[in-house]
Amino acid sequence: MRFIDKLCKRWNEGKFVSIGLDPVKEKMPKGLSFFEFNKAIIDATSSLVAAYKPNTAFYESEGAAGIEELKKTTDYINKKYPDIFLLVDAKRADIGNTNEGYAKFVFDYLRADSLTVHPYLGQEALEPFIRNSNKGAFVLCKTSNPGASEFQNLETNGMTLYEKVAFQVARKWNSKDNVGLVVGATYPIDLQKIRSIAKNLPILIPGVGAQGGDIKEAVQAVRKNFIVSASRSIIFASRGADFAEAARAETIRINDEIKSSL
Amino acid sequence: MRFIDKLCKRWNEGKFVSIGLDPVKEKMPKGLSFFEFNKAIIDATSSLVAAYKPNTAFYESEGAAGIEELKKTTDYINKKYPDIFLLVDAKRADIGNTNEGYAKFVFDYLRADSLTVHPYLGQEALEPFIRNSNKGAFVLCKTSNPGASEFQNLETNGMTLYEKVAFQVARKWNSKDNVGLVVGATYPIDLQKIRSIAKNLPILIPGVGAQGGDIKEAVQAVRKNFIVSASRSIIFASRGADFAEAARAETIRINDEIKSSL
Repeated sequence: MRFIDKLCKRWNEGKFVSIGLDPVKEKMPKGLSFFEFNKAIIDATSSLVAAYKPNTAFYESEGAAGIEELKKTTDYINKKYPDIFLLVDAKRADIGNTNEGYAKFVFDYLRADSLTVHPYLGQEALEPFIRNSNKGAFVLCKTSNPGASEFQNLETNGMTLYEKVAFQVARKWNSKDNVGLVVGATYPIDLQKIRSIAKNLPILIPGVGAQGGDIKEAVQAVRKNFIVSASRSIIFASRGADFAEAARAETIRINDEIKSSL
Repeated sequence: MRFIDKLCKRWNEGKFVSIGLDPVKEKMPKGLSFFEFNKAIIDATSSLVAAYKPNTAFYESEGAAGIEELKKTTDYINKKYPDIFLLVDAKRADIGNTNEGYAKFVFDYLRADSLTVHPYLGQEALEPFIRNSNKGAFVLCKTSNPGASEFQNLETNGMTLYEKVAFQVARKWNSKDNVGLVVGATYPIDLQKIRSIAKNLPILIPGVGAQGGDIKEAVQAVRKNFIVSASRSIIFASRGADFAEAARAETIRINDEIKSSL
């Protein structure tokens, strides 16, 4: 199925939440592996979400054993919930020859639909991620962190760098309808500017929950074709044995807040 | 030992080459694991090099098993050749909380001295990589790929984006002498501009060899405090059983060309 069709199907079902599967041993009930923790969250929320978004950093921090846990997690999603959009939050980008290796990791080994990438090397280098319309990439545009503006807000020929990224991606990179943008909910005004440049592009919105972004402001800025991603506020909603039910309740709460903001 | 002291020690010995340990099964003699291939290259070149630079993409393409091979490789370098600078070419960068996971992977699990990072999220997000003067990061400034200019050459308040990255890193990020820049040999004029902004910063120069950058031009542009990195042209200098000796010969040739260009 095409990247964009898989996303649209979720949106048509009224599902707008992506859960960041970002396990941290100290915050999980004792004795559970990353995969067991993720599996419980996935089984409790699969009927609610648009996407699952494991961030590679949390698995790599445990070395090869962590990558095994990530692989088990993505295998489980692919086998049991193949309709859910699978987005690996990898924030990769290298020269083209090297990106072939990352594409193999994300698309062939983990069998994900998509990954997040840095824009800095330009479209030419990122071709391995966007040449097949069944797979695609979300390009960092305005990130959710407090220091995002150091480079992203530089003025360049009448628009900021983040606007220029949105412009290039919307006008040039997205010829196969398989490229989106990443814009933090922590910058709702910038989200609105980006939506006016990239009128139809899928936008992944991190930064709600633990990072403090407001859901209503973000949703009203972006209006359509978006995924709101939350990680810590969902997966660690309870630190006790009821963590999966608590994750389900928080996912429902966020999706309801999104729908009432539309 | 401090990041900068470990590098300076190598330069004082007249060693300027970094070998990219980027194994590819189809190009290696049959039957060798990535680690066995790397080990042969390392043992044949350890007396010659400033640094080893494994790029994570080539290991991730093989999944968890590939990460095991990377770990064996970095363990071997740390145990047998602890004086050689160990740089993981990971091109990572996420928000601060997430970068802690990548820092754990590169600094604790692989026990490397340094990694390459994207500048896009700014200094605030990258603190986990540069807060300890014994470890540090090389920041992508002007990359070696043909399409590098799409964003990197945008004009922003009288300087290009890549010059602004060099400026910020040199004036602000490098307070612990543990941050360098990545500048492709394929853009020697830009290398010269960057050196005039970042007068003393360590510069990692990829793009010679398979990518076609000229060593003499690059060295004369940068003059001091640099590492020239080559991967394919060294490790695949021969596809036969003599690959390690061929790698040694090519490393000597490149280091000699660098020294005669100084």
